[in-house]
Amino acid sequence: MSALLAELRAIVGDAGLLALPDDMARYDSDGRGAGGAAIAVVRPATTGEVSALMRALHRHGAPVVPQGGRSGLAGAGLAAGAVVLSLERLAQAPQIDPINRTVQVDSGVPLSSLNAAAAAHGLTFPIDLGADPSVGGMVVANTGGARFLRYGDVRRNLLGLEVVLADGEGTVIELGGPVWKDNSGLDLKQLFTSSAGALGVVTRATLALQPLPANRVTALVGLATPAAAAPLLVELERRAGTLLTAFEGISATALELALAHVPRLRRPFAASPPYSVLIELSGGSGLPAGLLTNLLEEAIVPLIEIGTAIDAAVDEGDSLWAIRHAIPEGLRAHGSVIACDIAVRRGDLSRFRELAAAEVAQRWPQLVVADFGHVGDGGLHFNMVWPRDAGPAPAGLAAAVQSLVFAMVVEQFSGSFSAEHGIGPRNIDHYARFTPPPVRDLAGRVQRLVAPAGLGRVDFGAQLENAHV
Amino acid sequence: MSALLAELRAIVGDAGLLALPDDMARYDSDGRGAGGAAIAVVRPATTGEVSALMRALHRHGAPVVPQGGRSGLAGAGLAAGAVVLSLERLAQAPQIDPINRTVQVDSGVPLSSLNAAAAAHGLTFPIDLGADPSVGGMVVANTGGARFLRYGDVRRNLLGLEVVLADGEGTVIELGGPVWKDNSGLDLKQLFTSSAGALGVVTRATLALQPLPANRVTALVGLATPAAAAPLLVELERRAGTLLTAFEGISATALELALAHVPRLRRPFAASPPYSVLIELSGGSGLPAGLLTNLLEEAIVPLIEIGTAIDAAVDEGDSLWAIRHAIPEGLRAHGSVIACDIAVRRGDLSRFRELAAAEVAQRWPQLVVADFGHVGDGGLHFNMVWPRDAGPAPAGLAAAVQSLVFAMVVEQFSGSFSAEHGIGPRNIDHYARFTPPPVRDLAGRVQRLVAPAGLGRVDFGAQLENAHV
Repeated sequence: MSALLAELRAIVGDAGLLALPDDMARYDSDGRGAGGAAIAVVRPATTGEVSALMRALHRHGAPVVPQGGRSGLAGAGLAAGAVVLSLERLAQAPQIDPINRTVQVDSGVPLSSLNAAAAAHGLTFPIDLGADPSVGGMVVANTGGARFLRYGDVRRNLLGLEVVLADGEGTVIELGGPVWKDNSGLDLKQLFTSSAGALGVVTRATLALQPLPANRVTALVGLATPAAAAPLLVELERRAGTLLTAFEGISATALELALAHVPRLRRPFAASPPYSVLIELSGGSGLPAGLLTNLLEEAIVPLIEIGTAIDAAVDEGDSLWAIRHAIPEGLRAHGSVIACDIAVRRGDLSRFRELAAAEVAQRWPQLVVADFGHVGDGGLHFNMVWPRDAGPAPAGLAAAVQSLVFAMVVEQFSGSFSAEHGIGPRNIDHYARFTPPPVRDLAGRVQRLVAPAGLGRVDFGAQLENAHV
Repeated sequence: MSALLAELRAIVGDAGLLALPDDMARYDSDGRGAGGAAIAVVRPATTGEVSALMRALHRHGAPVVPQGGRSGLAGAGLAAGAVVLSLERLAQAPQIDPINRTVQVDSGVPLSSLNAAAAAHGLTFPIDLGADPSVGGMVVANTGGARFLRYGDVRRNLLGLEVVLADGEGTVIELGGPVWKDNSGLDLKQLFTSSAGALGVVTRATLALQPLPANRVTALVGLATPAAAAPLLVELERRAGTLLTAFEGISATALELALAHVPRLRRPFAASPPYSVLIELSGGSGLPAGLLTNLLEEAIVPLIEIGTAIDAAVDEGDSLWAIRHAIPEGLRAHGSVIACDIAVRRGDLSRFRELAAAEVAQRWPQLVVADFGHVGDGGLHFNMVWPRDAGPAPAGLAAAVQSLVFAMVVEQFSGSFSAEHGIGPRNIDHYARFTPPPVRDLAGRVQRLVAPAGLGRVDFGAQLENAHV
């Protein structure tokens, strides 16, 4: 152990190696909470150091887990009993090409810093999240977010990667680059995207940027029933086309919990409607004044007249987005959260919500369903709260609830049990259960081929026999 | 051989097997011309038949090449000396989910049929091409096209694949499906996208569709210099945002050749300007009348006033697109075409054009450079014509010209030597030359892992020693 640490220190210097428990504590938790203690934290500052570290760690047989901004929710960046390879010091200033609308950016740069740099050129990396992940973490999680409807996920905006392979040699490869269109071979960078950090260490990315919209209007529309959301979405897509940049759904309970527990929010409606949708239209500087508001009103006013919609609040600032982004905080304040990050067909969302809520209510009457999510892309945070005032939650509650909900999603709705959070130790058992054997087999063999020396926390060949579900 | 044919016939029936030269002739050429003769053509009508064929062919050690709509340009679907596995009968009616905006579609369905079915629901698969490829061919080529700027390539609109593996067993796997967002494991469908049909047989796809824009205006703008294109593009992106759906470039020579050789076209300008750009703005039904035309005029009129633009033609129909799509026909009518399907950074396009044209003119003064392409995404068909009236072209001219141009693209501009056409026998030597050895090595090993029984025409592990460049 001390020989390993000495070797690592020789590569990264004193500032790059942490081995004291107090120094290491903050590397042991992510967006969902604490994992176990790591055996050391190395923080390389260059790709060359990452490569040298990978060689040394492999020679010593030490397990290693790449780590980004620790905002992940599946536990893929946590390293109990292993060495944390933190990319946080791989964070030079992003290099922006404003005419090409691209940026070359180090793995450790936070999304907020990337977007601050892009905004100076009137550009944005259009992945909208409550959290502030690192670029490398976003790549290996293939982050989606609230504007997926228009701009897609990280994969859809990714042009190139620099990767250090887990091949025992620390081989550095460049895949893609600053051109938008390239079909000159297998697109191997796709393998590392959504890989949970288990196929290689992403050290640098080239990303496509979008023009920062000069005009933006949001509306929070209270609907009489959740089923009214899908027709409104389709109508807005027809009328507003690509000007529609977000369409989020909020259950009455999620809205109430956010307003009750987050005092900085303004209350949009006198009484919470059965279901609300947050709609964003945005576009370029040349749009005439009032266009976006008119488009919204032309879609919403007829619904209010016939009673399908109850009320609407319109805003050109961020006050309605603030409500949407405060929901997770509102749920946490109310009790212990059980999260189901799922996706189904857009037209199935309201039926799924109804069936799943009924099943949950029958089995666990004390659980409060407080779902919200991305109606525009079929994604739903079907989250539940075991309220503080209900006493301690039964042992194994979260796993049992997720098992029930995920089985419904996959088996009845052909949906996804991990729409945006990816795979990690926290849901690997569900992966083993719901991924067909030939797919798991191929994934496991691809992983062993690409990363024969081993890396990260996920075995994509995971066998069902090992599952605890 | 007759034992093999009997076995294939037992699987697909008489209608599914062609072995007479006259019947087979049309399967021997693609969008670029004829390859050699195949030894047989099998035309399965179900995924089960594809699987049985793959098992039988492997058992007999017969080489097999999947084939789509034969519109490819790299030769990946041609099967000289091998068995053609034509997907053309795998073509049941597309199943459209209008609320989800998705379609499940068989591999053999042509793009035109897919879009006719989608249009009935006010939807479109937004890949715009001059040709009419099959869905499966589009997946393995990762087709781009003229609206890439807004809607991306096939990969970006692909949600799921059904694939028959070249594993000797004909294993059928389903990867992804009708949900838009799914990060529940390695995204293995990405491996088969842009695979030149060499990793597995794509039998079915689930695609995302877009709302068909109810409003659309195009302008052909004559510019005083090619360098004026990039600033106009950036200005339009800022002003029109996502309403900008195409920005194509046309050299004076390409425009003249199209107008000279394709009589159905109307002449847009009295005299051809040094460079032209075809701009399309489009959007939903709710846009006020005149908005798109106003946005165009506000960007173009100031350029005409200062002399940066010379003239502009505006159209709400397809007459300007007709000119753009007729260019390949115009070039072919003038002589023998040498095509370079390249991409560089958007800001480098005009400098690249200038440098490459100068090099070509110095080495081959008789060659006519007549480039056109996708300025909005940095893609360029840097095509040249050896005129009919110049007599026969020197032996090896195309390979020598491509070698020069591609080396400039890759080495001086960090660009792509195959932006949209993919890899096939016609450019495998360039692949071997320009792909770094560790990337080729990894690609070859991934290919052998996924398709151990062998398939198609491309070896992604191709060695430079075998290259004839």
